[in-house]
Parts: sequence; C-alpha cells; structure tokens
Amino acid sequence: MRFSKAYIKTLKETPKEAEIASHKLMLRAGMIKKLASGIYAYLPLGYRTIKKIENIVREEMDRAGAQELLMPVVQPGELWQESGRWDVMGPEMTRLKDRNERDFVLSPTQEEMITAIVRSDISSYKSLPFNLYHIQTKFRDERRPRFGLMRSREFTMKDAYSFHTSQESLDEEFINMRDAYSRVFTRCGLKFRPVDADSGNIGGSGSQEFHVLAESGEDEIIYSDGCSYAANVEAAISKLVNPEKEELKEIELVYTPNCPTIEALANYLDIPLNKTVKALMYKDMGTDEIYMVLIRGDFEVNEVKLKNILNAVAVEMATDEEIEKLGLKKGYIGPYKLPSPVKVIVDLSVPEISNHIVGSHQKDYHYANINYGRDYTADIVADIRKAKAGDDCPYSDGKLHSARGIECGHIFKLGDKYSKAMNATYLDEKGQSHYMLMGCYGLGITRTMAATIEQYNDENGIIWPVSIAPYIVDVIPVNIKNEVQVGLAEKIYNNLQEEKIDVMLDDRDEKPGFKFKDADLIGFPFKVVVGKKADEGVVELKIRRTGETYEVSKDEVVAKIKELMKIY
Amino acid sequence: MRFSKAYIKTLKETPKEAEIASHKLMLRAGMIKKLASGIYAYLPLGYRTIKKIENIVREEMDRAGAQELLMPVVQPGELWQESGRWDVMGPEMTRLKDRNERDFVLSPTQEEMITAIVRSDISSYKSLPFNLYHIQTKFRDERRPRFGLMRSREFTMKDAYSFHTSQESLDEEFINMRDAYSRVFTRCGLKFRPVDADSGNIGGSGSQEFHVLAESGEDEIIYSDGCSYAANVEAAISKLVNPEKEELKEIELVYTPNCPTIEALANYLDIPLNKTVKALMYKDMGTDEIYMVLIRGDFEVNEVKLKNILNAVAVEMATDEEIEKLGLKKGYIGPYKLPSPVKVIVDLSVPEISNHIVGSHQKDYHYANINYGRDYTADIVADIRKAKAGDDCPYSDGKLHSARGIECGHIFKLGDKYSKAMNATYLDEKGQSHYMLMGCYGLGITRTMAATIEQYNDENGIIWPVSIAPYIVDVIPVNIKNEVQVGLAEKIYNNLQEEKIDVMLDDRDEKPGFKFKDADLIGFPFKVVVGKKADEGVVELKIRRTGETYEVSKDEVVAKIKELMKIY
Repeated sequence: MRFSKAYIKTLKETPKEAEIASHKLMLRAGMIKKLASGIYAYLPLGYRTIKKIENIVREEMDRAGAQELLMPVVQPGELWQESGRWDVMGPEMTRLKDRNERDFVLSPTQEEMITAIVRSDISSYKSLPFNLYHIQTKFRDERRPRFGLMRSREFTMKDAYSFHTSQESLDEEFINMRDAYSRVFTRCGLKFRPVDADSGNIGGSGSQEFHVLAESGEDEIIYSDGCSYAANVEAAISKLVNPEKEELKEIELVYTPNCPTIEALANYLDIPLNKTVKALMYKDMGTDEIYMVLIRGDFEVNEVKLKNILNAVAVEMATDEEIEKLGLKKGYIGPYKLPSPVKVIVDLSVPEISNHIVGSHQKDYHYANINYGRDYTADIVADIRKAKAGDDCPYSDGKLHSARGIECGHIFKLGDKYSKAMNATYLDEKGQSHYMLMGCYGLGITRTMAATIEQYNDENGIIWPVSIAPYIVDVIPVNIKNEVQVGLAEKIYNNLQEEKIDVMLDDRDEKPGFKFKDADLIGFPFKVVVGKKADEGVVELKIRRTGETYEVSKDEVVAKIKELMKIY
Repeated sequence: MRFSKAYIKTLKETPKEAEIASHKLMLRAGMIKKLASGIYAYLPLGYRTIKKIENIVREEMDRAGAQELLMPVVQPGELWQESGRWDVMGPEMTRLKDRNERDFVLSPTQEEMITAIVRSDISSYKSLPFNLYHIQTKFRDERRPRFGLMRSREFTMKDAYSFHTSQESLDEEFINMRDAYSRVFTRCGLKFRPVDADSGNIGGSGSQEFHVLAESGEDEIIYSDGCSYAANVEAAISKLVNPEKEELKEIELVYTPNCPTIEALANYLDIPLNKTVKALMYKDMGTDEIYMVLIRGDFEVNEVKLKNILNAVAVEMATDEEIEKLGLKKGYIGPYKLPSPVKVIVDLSVPEISNHIVGSHQKDYHYANINYGRDYTADIVADIRKAKAGDDCPYSDGKLHSARGIECGHIFKLGDKYSKAMNATYLDEKGQSHYMLMGCYGLGITRTMAATIEQYNDENGIIWPVSIAPYIVDVIPVNIKNEVQVGLAEKIYNNLQEEKIDVMLDDRDEKPGFKFKDADLIGFPFKVVVGKKADEGVVELKIRRTGETYEVSKDEVVAKIKELMKIY
C-alpha cells in the first residue's frame, strides 16, 4: 500500500474522551472512528488487524475440528423466553419489535439460537459430538460503554458451542478448546494466562478465562509461584491457615467502648485479627432477603462466591436502615442471641476460631468466648473468602501473587442448562432419550485487538506484534525529491510485496520526522529508512519494539526482515 | 472433511414453505436453517460458499483499489435525520431505542454512515478520490420475506462508497467498479448481464444493475440483439416508431357506444391502435395529487418512469371514486374540455399522433380529430413508455428481447445527494469549499449464492460452479466394508487435500445409492466413486454438470480433476 493512497488520518491530539492507551492510540492512528457511545467503525488500518486476528482464530478453531457457521444478529425473542433468560437479561440486551410486532433481540450471545438449530437437526447419538463456531457482530447495551473497543456496545466475537453425550466427551472438548485458545493468543504474540473463573449468568459447571496481561486490565488475577494455578480473583481460592485451637471458655459480656470496627476491637482487646470474627449484613438483590455473613477478621468477603452460594443475581451490603429494621445494631452485630430470625452464612475460617468475640446488639458491648457449634450455628458454611496476593497456594507450597488482566476469552462447561430448558435431546443406542451436554467458548476479537495495544505500547504509539500488525514494514524514503532514494525505496517495497509481506511505502511529500512519528504511532514492527546512504545501496532497518537500528545493504534487507519476523 | 464428522443434515422432503429451487435446495442440502420469517442461519456447508463468494468479492475490490473497513450494524438515527431519509424510509427500516432512549436503526444501507465518517476525516482535495467498502450484515424488514435468501430480512452485502472532486473521476470509478463486478460474477461462474437501471430511493444520476440470468428471476430485463444495450424493464427505453402525420382536421363529437376501453374503441372505429391515445389516471402516493396520463394506445405506462418524473415516492392507479370526484368519467377520460383542473402528463408518443380520439366526459361519446398542441397541452411531456420485447433497439438496428434476471449487484452515481444533505465538503487547491461527489456500489453476497442455485440446478439438486462450491470433490467408497476400496478412497482424499482441493470423503456406513443422492443434492462438481475396480486401481470420475463419467486410474485422478476444475 502507498501511504498517499491509504485511508489513514492520524491525529496529533488525543481525543479527550479516551482514557486508556488502546483507545487513545486507535483513535490517534486512525484505526477506529466513534459513531455513537460504544459504537465504532473499524477503519481500513484497524480492520486489517481485526481480520488477521479472525484468521488466526479461524485456523485454530478449524484445526481443533470445529466447524464454522454464521448465525444471525437479529434473534427471535421466543427463544429467550424458552430458555428463561428473557426475564433475566437486563437492559444490556436490546429488544426490538418487527413490523408485525413480534419480539426480537440483538444477539448478546447465542446459546439459545445454537440450541434451537441443533435440536432441530440432531436426533441420534451417532451425530454427536461436534463443535460449531461463528465470528459475528454482537450487541450489548452497556450501561457505561468506555475504553474504546475494550467495553464497546457493538463488537466482534468468536463464539463456539459443542454438544456431547457424556461428561467425559465435554471435558475432552473443553481441554481441546483450552489448547486452541492458547495457540490463538500465542500466535497473536501475547503474554496471557488461562485462569479459573466464575461462570456468571451463562451458567454451567466450570469455566476458564483467558486474560491478556496488562497493567490497565479491569480484572485482578491471582496466580501461584509454586504451580500453574491461576484464577480470576472472583473465583480464586487460597490455602486456609488457621490459628491454633484453644480450650473453650465461658461466655462473657465485655465492655468495649468506641470499638465499632473489627480493627478497633482487636486493638482495644489486644487480640490478633486472625482470632477475631467479623459480621457483615448482605442483601440478595433479587429476593431482598438479608443475611448475616461471618468471616475471620483479617479476611475479606468475596461477593461473587457469596452470590453464587445464595444463588442470587447480585448481592450488596445492607443499608443501616435495613439492619436496624431487623433489631440489629451496626458495629455490634453478632450471631449470638439474635433479636430476630436472620439466616447466617459462615466462612470456612470461622468454625476454626475458638473463643471469639461477637457483637452484643448493644452499643459498647461485645460477647467474648463465643464458639461456633456450641453457641450458634449457621444456615450455610462455605468458602466465601477473597484470595489475595501473599496467601498460600492451595495446590503447592508456593505463594499467591496478583496481576492485572484483560479477559479476552472465556470457555464454559454448560452441561445441560440450555438443552434441558429448550429440550435438546438425542436417542442413545438403546433408543432412550437424553439431554445433550453443552460447552461454550467465547473469544473477543475486537477486545483482543485493544488488549494487544494495552500490552504493547509506549509514549510514541503502538508496537504491533508481527502476526497481527496491519502492515509489517514501513518503507520511508527520507527525501521524496531524491530519485535514488525513491527508486531504492520503490524497489524494496516491490521486493517485500513479492514475498507477500504486508508493506507500506510512505510516498507522501512530507518531512521525514513527520513520517517517522506516524510510523511509530501506527506501530509498524519494522521501518526501512532509505536516506543518504542509498547511493551506496545501504538502508537503515529499525525495530519498533527494541528501538534497535541496523545498517543493511539493499540486497539483504528482505532476508533480514524475514529473520526478524520470526522473533517479533 | 469426513462426511461422518461434518454437520450436514440433508432432507428427503422439501419443506412446504419453499417455492423456488434455491430455497428448496438450500434447505434440503442442509445449507441454511430458518429461525424466523426471513431470518436464516448459514450452516457450515452453506457458509463455505458464502465465504468463497466473499473472498472473490474482496480480492476484486482490493484489485480495483478499494479499501476494506467495517461499519457497525447499529447506526445512530440522527444520521438518517440529517440526510432526510429518517422520514422517507418506511417500516422496512427497523428502528430501535437504546437504554437511554436514543434513536438507532439496524443498517439497511450505509450512505449516511460513510458520509459521516468521511466528512470528519477528509478536508482537502489531496485526499481524494478513494473508495471504501465493507462486507456486513444488513437488515430490511421486508413486508413479505420470501424465496429463502433471495428476499430475506437479514442478509450479507458488500457495499462500497467512493468520493471524488469531479464528475470525470466519479465516472472513471463507476467504470472501474463495473469492471470489478463483471470479474466477480465471471469468477463465480455465472451467466449475468449489466443493465441500465432505475436508481430507486438511493438517488443519484445514473445506475447499473448486475443481473444473474435465471427463469425464476423476479426482474424482467430488456436487451438488444444489435448492440450491448440492456436495461431493467423499469428503466428500459426503445426506439419510438411513429405513425405518419396527417393534415389536421376539425374536432367532432362522435357516438361510440359500448367502447369503454381503447381496444374496443379502435375496433369499433376501425383505427389501428398506434393511432389512438389512451388516458389513465394516476395518484402520487406521497402528495395524493391525481394526474391524467396520456400514452399511445398500443403502449403501456412504465410506472417507475412516471414516479421519477413526478418525483414521487410511489404512484398507483387512481380509484373510480377518486376519478369521479374530479368530474371525470371512467372509460371516457380525455384532456379536451377538462371539467376540473388536473395536471396532464403526456408520453413522447402522443404529440406525434394526428387527429386522435379522446374521451368526452360523457358515456358513449368521444371527441375525434384531437391534436396535441392545437387542442390541449400538457404539464409534462416525457418518456413514460414501457419498453418490451419486439421493440426496436434505441441504439442499433437490432430488436429488443426479454429475459428474467436476479439483481445481485447495483452500482450508482450518487453525485452530491448525500454530501450536500450532510455537508461533506473539501477544499480545492484555491481553498474553496465544494461538496464531494459520491458513488455507491452494492453486491448481495447471500443473494448471489441463491441466484447461483437458480441458474445451476436440476431435478436431483444443486450444480455448483467449482469456484464457489462448498467442496469440489466427493470421494465415495462404494462398499465401506471393503478394505481395498476404503484404502484407495482415503489415499485419493489425502492426495486431493495435499493439493489444497476442497474434498469430502463420504466415509458413512450407508448404501452407495444414498450417498450418490446426497452428493447430487449438495452439488459437488465432481464425484470420485471407488468401487469394484479399486482392485485394479481404477475409479469412476463423474461430472455433476454434464453427467459424464470417466474411468480413471488412481494415479491420474488428481491431475484429471485439476484439468476439469478449469472448465466447470
């Protein structure tokens, strides 16, 4: 491509609305154009990278034995009514009516549709298993679209759905997909981590996320230095190290002035935090029921775990008013001598602490020497603890660490959640009917593009990995009026094209500094600068990632670039 | 691909709703799946053909110098308000509101959006001309979706938009695109015709359609046997051959009992039809104004031409009631001594007829010897005549003929219609501002797939051209229990794969007749049948299009297929 013909409009100034590197740089490099909040056009330069990511995904899905189809963007609403998600999905799912007043939705995801297709085609175990995928536009009407392609409303996603007769077959395909995803992100040149994850409202029995590592990532990842364990903080677990047990003592009411927090109380009574228990009040946002949640004083509640245990859509801390209505007193809450019937949820850490202190429902007083089992019990005892950096690894002698990640892929074992709701069955060898088991596998194409820039950028612009760079080489004649320079630049441009290397020739009548700035902003992995030494047949080859520069003879430049393309 | 693993569910019975070959056969071959009226999923087999058509389009658009981008499916409504089409587009444009009650539309077309993008990027003549295209899902809420992918609501289209500083540049790009389209349809293996066309509600100064020829086509095409002239009947013109002029005579009121039609009148008075004039009453469906339309008795009114001349959204024949309200009498309408003010539109043929007869506004009487100019005039004189087979060619000595076609492409010179409405301007060399001139170029990807089947099918199924067949060869071992046959089939399958020829191996444990039926239905261009002569290393090679069969040695089969691939 000749720069003079290319539809590329770079910007000097960063548009005000952009907060993170990928958003700023995609706008500045002329890769995307905002058309409405969270709705972008992918301009020619940006779309080249998207197509390259799509092709890598397509190749690896095909290699893994999945078959590509294309499902529509506009889905019949009745499928969502069948699955029960019509009422569960909030305003992020855009609903519309056709000219005959029938309900439709803009695809936020395709579990319902693929299940409807497969149930109408498949009746026998002989046709199973298989995996169908598509790469399609999706729409989610985010409450707060932001960060450019990171959280846009319209975006491109690859989603795959597999169908099975047994859990073993599903487990196998899950590993097959995990491996395919690892190949995809590796081929995109990315540092990434597959992590255990919460399944969210998709449902099912197990899931993993693929996170591209970047400081700006919205998600916290916990990982072990002793083994391969890694998880989204939402799902992460750590080894529970308990204090030593003591002999049980008699309950006492103790005076604890000005100790409304667990830290103040531990400090006043001179007890280590890991021998205290704190009580928190949570509300199930679906049912409005309020729960008392107990956890060791030095731990935090993982609200995602709590939500899952309560089978709730969401949980939030109860308000002071709601707490008072139950006859409880903020700062002095406890499970002993409850003034009204409240369900109690207890973290696994709590039964291990002997003689702990709890609120007495009156200001400035606590009960001491309270013991789980003897003095109170719980409706649920479960792991609701937030794992954090510094905790012990649950699977090795290692320690846990924390990193930031961008979720670019998510694979799920759905089990029979959708096949049951939508009656997708098959007949086995004996003619008996069963629900199919399903897996689903999502990969954000446009988000992966943004995540790549978050991982690879500097103050001058983007630094594309070779495999997904819109163009790999930028050939720049320093003086567009110098025939020798222009001639040599054209020759190198043609040679690279013959080798099927995506190359740009910056034939614009602009100052070299201006062209270099554009080159760095757009992020070509390599620049070939054809300057004064063109007379001698020598050019400069610059590596964007490292800043290294080589003087290379014109006859070697293509070979040198091919060599470097294997590294970057 | 192994048939046993492929997601292909063929049907013996034709689904009732399907009326035309492509719809029936795509459903029966398991290429598409209906999810709602006019909304289909493209199953793996069908999507392979779609991707092949897309790739041909992409290659030819790139070769023509166009640059690919991707614009969103969900468009801000305000762009359509700006262009003025928000109010013009009927219910076929689906409107929706986001969670903040802002107006959006599902893309029926993208003139507004591309103009919005370009006006924000381009300010100088130096950046022009260019041509941007995308291949994207579109949605049009058809009143009567039918014929499968031929008239579906959600479909895939390539649309391109070019921007220019001069009419010459636009004209040049129009020809460039016409050539690119010809290459696309040629590479798809189709018989097609570029024809002059009406511009419809897209607007602009000139347009051509690309029709794939097929008996089942919805459109009538008029073409010349004397030159390359061809046009959609909506836009077609023919040479006007006038009767000889006569000396003007005095007006007479003549008794014409029982002659309410022009044929009856001509018969009764023994005048040739080409010396009569008929009067018709039309209504502009936008303004409700009613017009009198006069045309020679042996001609038909082309309502599209009439609509364009009136600048109307649509025209329809006025009802008897509407005619009577104007004081006119059906069967006795005429422009002479009009009882109320009605605008008169006259076809070019009318002023050429001397001494013709017109209605007298009273039953059983007509005025004879009426002459245009002397006895009445018109508000508009224009070509509103329908050209038909048998007419003389307007550009050569040839005759016109008629054929049926399927409109798969449409290219337009838009001029400044959108740039003016949406203020897309550039500065010229002197710093003066001008509106950009635009062209737009659509090509229906999924419709081209359906049109191909309309052109290529027989009673047994589809007959794919090699270039867009989902698979080119079907290798069928006759007896799946015979090791020699299976071994040889596997070998040929592997050899073809090594040559990157898309091949299916029908490894299913089914009777050969069953497999042959599937092969013919799906439409593989070539079958390799590995039967009894496998022992001798000989197989049968069948050509789907011609029914020809060759006996070929195992070592020659790949070479023979490669040779045949150049022909079919």
